[in-house]
Amino acid sequence: MLDKVDAVADLMADLGRRARAAARRLALCSSTQKDAALRAMADAVEADVDAILAANAADLERARSAGLAGSFMDRLRLDAGRVAAIAGALRDVGALPDPVGAVVAEWERPNGLRISRVRTPLGVVGVVYESRPNVTADAGALCLKAGNAVILRGGSDSAASSAAIYGCLRKGLVAAGLPADAILAVPTSDRAAVGHMLAGLDGSIDVIVPRGGRSLVERVQREARVPVFAHLEGLCHVYVDRAADLGMAVRLVVNSKLRRTGVCGAAETLLVDRAAAATHLAPILAALAEGGCEIRGDADVVDLYPSAVPATEADWRTEYLDAIISVALVDGVEGAIEHIERWSSHHTEAIVTEDSAAAVRFLTGIDSAILLHNASTQFADGGEFGFGGEIGIATGKMHARGPVGVEQLTSFNYRVSGSGQTRP
Amino acid sequence: MLDKVDAVADLMADLGRRARAAARRLALCSSTQKDAALRAMADAVEADVDAILAANAADLERARSAGLAGSFMDRLRLDAGRVAAIAGALRDVGALPDPVGAVVAEWERPNGLRISRVRTPLGVVGVVYESRPNVTADAGALCLKAGNAVILRGGSDSAASSAAIYGCLRKGLVAAGLPADAILAVPTSDRAAVGHMLAGLDGSIDVIVPRGGRSLVERVQREARVPVFAHLEGLCHVYVDRAADLGMAVRLVVNSKLRRTGVCGAAETLLVDRAAAATHLAPILAALAEGGCEIRGDADVVDLYPSAVPATEADWRTEYLDAIISVALVDGVEGAIEHIERWSSHHTEAIVTEDSAAAVRFLTGIDSAILLHNASTQFADGGEFGFGGEIGIATGKMHARGPVGVEQLTSFNYRVSGSGQTRP
Repeated sequence: MLDKVDAVADLMADLGRRARAAARRLALCSSTQKDAALRAMADAVEADVDAILAANAADLERARSAGLAGSFMDRLRLDAGRVAAIAGALRDVGALPDPVGAVVAEWERPNGLRISRVRTPLGVVGVVYESRPNVTADAGALCLKAGNAVILRGGSDSAASSAAIYGCLRKGLVAAGLPADAILAVPTSDRAAVGHMLAGLDGSIDVIVPRGGRSLVERVQREARVPVFAHLEGLCHVYVDRAADLGMAVRLVVNSKLRRTGVCGAAETLLVDRAAAATHLAPILAALAEGGCEIRGDADVVDLYPSAVPATEADWRTEYLDAIISVALVDGVEGAIEHIERWSSHHTEAIVTEDSAAAVRFLTGIDSAILLHNASTQFADGGEFGFGGEIGIATGKMHARGPVGVEQLTSFNYRVSGSGQTRP
Repeated sequence: MLDKVDAVADLMADLGRRARAAARRLALCSSTQKDAALRAMADAVEADVDAILAANAADLERARSAGLAGSFMDRLRLDAGRVAAIAGALRDVGALPDPVGAVVAEWERPNGLRISRVRTPLGVVGVVYESRPNVTADAGALCLKAGNAVILRGGSDSAASSAAIYGCLRKGLVAAGLPADAILAVPTSDRAAVGHMLAGLDGSIDVIVPRGGRSLVERVQREARVPVFAHLEGLCHVYVDRAADLGMAVRLVVNSKLRRTGVCGAAETLLVDRAAAATHLAPILAALAEGGCEIRGDADVVDLYPSAVPATEADWRTEYLDAIISVALVDGVEGAIEHIERWSSHHTEAIVTEDSAAAVRFLTGIDSAILLHNASTQFADGGEFGFGGEIGIATGKMHARGPVGVEQLTSFNYRVSGSGQTRP
C-alpha cells in the first residue's frame, strides 16, 4: 500500500515538473505556432474519427454493463457529428486573437516612466472533469491558446474516448513543434492522483478547474490548496415585472426553463411581480405546463393557479436541472432583488420589463455573474458571449467570473521602461 | 475556556454579518457619498491629531517597556508629519476615479444582444496587519473607495494608535451618511479572532489581505479557506547587461539597493554580465560599499573584487531587507533570466542596458509581477504606478498581481441587454 501511494505521488510529482517546464517554454511560443498546433489537432481528430468512435463505443459498452443512467450515457456518447464539433471547436480556438502579450493598459508617469500592463499565461492549469470526453479537447485547446500547460484528469468512465482525443492533441503539438508536455493526461485512474493535484503538485499547479457535478466541485473546493475556478450550481431566476410585455415574458420564461433543462443557465425559479399576477401569471404557467414543466408555487401562486404544486422552502434553493420550476409572487423589482439576493447562487438572473428604470435597478442591484434584461438565461455561455468557447462558468468573484474563456485563463504583469530614473 | 472560545466565535460571526450587510448597502452608494466620507475622515484625522499622537505615545511606551527593536519602533511611531500624511492619503483616495460601475468592455453580438463587463465591489475584505498604524487608514480608505466593507485586525502593539485612527474613519462614514459598519475593527486581541477570519466567517469574507512579516503571511496562506492577496517577499534582482551605460548602472543599482533597504522593492541580488565584468563590476561594487553595503559575491566576483565576502547558496534565496547584496556574474541576458527564474520571488526585476533587444528579451522572458528597463526596482509601489495608494504588492498570479490598488479590489459582472432574444 505504501509503495502504491509513493508510486502515485512520484508519478504526479514528475507530471508537475514536466508541465512546469513545458509552461515556461510555451509562454514564449508565437501565436502562429499555437494556432498551427490547434489546426493540426483538428486535422488529427478528423483523421482519427473511426478510432475515436471505436474507443467511445468501448466506454459506452462498459457504462451500459455498469447500469449507468441515460443522462450519463448521453453526456458520454460521441457520434460523427459530435466528433466534427470537437474538431470545429479546436479550429475556432485557433482563430481567436492571442491573449498573451496583449497590452491591456498603458500610461506614462510624470517622471517619464512608461508603464504597460500586459497579459501573460497563468502557468499550469489542472482540469478535473467527469464524463464528457469533449472536455479533453476544449480544456486542452483553451489552455494552450492562453499559453498555459494543462494537466487533464478525466473520469474513468470516458477513459478510452478521452485517450483517443488526447492522442490527437499530442499529434498536433508535435506537428507544430511545441513541447508535447504542454498538454498532459494523468496516466492513472488511482483516485489519489486527484488529491495530489488539489495539493498543487509542490507548486507546479497554479489553478484548478473542476468540471462536473456538485460533489466533484465541492470536493475540489474543500480540499484544494491552490486557487480554484469554481463553477458551482446555477440557481438562475427570471423576474417578470409589471411592465413586461406578456408575449415576450412567455417566450423568455419558456426558453429560459425548457430549451435545455440540464445546463447551468437554465432558470430554476420564476418571480412574478404581484402587480402583474392577474394578467401575466396564468398565461406563463400554462405555457410552461404545456411544455411539460412541473410547477411548484408559493401560496399566492397556488391561489391564482390551482394546478400548481405547493412549494416548500427547499424549492427556493434547489437547482432542479429538470423540467420543474418554482414560482413566487414578489413586490416589484425590490421584492425580486430581495428574493434573489437571499436564494441565488449568483450565476445568472434575468428581468423581463419595458421599464428601463426597473431594468437598471435590477442590473445594478444584484450581485450575480450575469444579469440579463429581456433575454433568456440560456445565453449564459462563453460561446454565446463571443468568447470562442469556455472552460466553465465561474460563480466566484476573484479573477474570473462568468464564462471562463481564454482571457480569463491569463494573468498579467507590468513592464516599465525608463531612461535611468531613480526614486527620490 | 469553552465559553471564551464561543464568545470569540460569536463576536466574529456577528462582525461578519454586519460587514456583509454594510457591503450590500455600500455597493449601491454613489461616488459622491464615498468621496465625501473620505474627505470627512481626513478632516477628523487632522482635528484629532493630538489624541492620535497621545495614543501612539502610549503604544510606544508599552513597546519600549517590552524591549522591542528599533526598526519595530520606527514602524510604530507617528509624528505630526506622519499623521498629516495619513490625512493626505485619505484625500488622495477620495480624488481617485470611482472604479465601481466602470464599463471595462462593451460589445454587441450578431443576435443583437449588447453585453457589457462592469466593475463591481468584491464584497467584504479582511485585512490582517501588524504594527504600522497607517495601514488602518490606507486599507479602510481603499476598500471603501472600491465599494467593499472591510474588517480590520491590527497588531496589538499598535492597538491604541489604530483605535484612534479608526475612530476618525467611523466619524467620516457617519458624516457622509454611509453605514458605520462599512469599516469594522476586530474588538478583541484574542488570537483566535484571526483564525475565524481566515476561515471566512461563514462566507462573510471574500478575500484576505495580510500586511506584515513573513510569518504572518505564511500563516495566512497556510490557514486561509478564502482567497488571499498574498504579498510574499520581494527577492528583487538588478541585471547589468554588457550594453549598460556605466554611470546609469551605478546610480540604478545604488538606488535599487540602498534608497530604503527595508521595503519589498529593494534589490537583494545584483547580476552582472560576464562580458561587462572587467569594466562595470568594480565601480558598481565600490559605490555600494561606499554607501555602507556589505557585498557577498560568487567565486568570480570575489576574484575580481577581493573585498567581497564569499556568497553561499543561501544568499541567492535571502531577502536581506538590509544593507547587504549578493552578486553573481551571469552569461548575458539568458544567464540572468536563468538565475532569476530559479531564485526570484517573482516580485520585481530590472535590467540596465542600452540594447533594446536585450531589454525586450528580459521583459518578456521573466514571469515576475514587475519588470523594469533602466529604472530602479524601488519604483515597485502603487503610488509610483499612479494607483493612488496600495494595500500591498501581490506576488500571486490570480486576480491581482503587483501593486493592489482600488481597481484590484474590485470584481466585475456582465450585463446583457436584449429585446426578447431566446436561444435557439
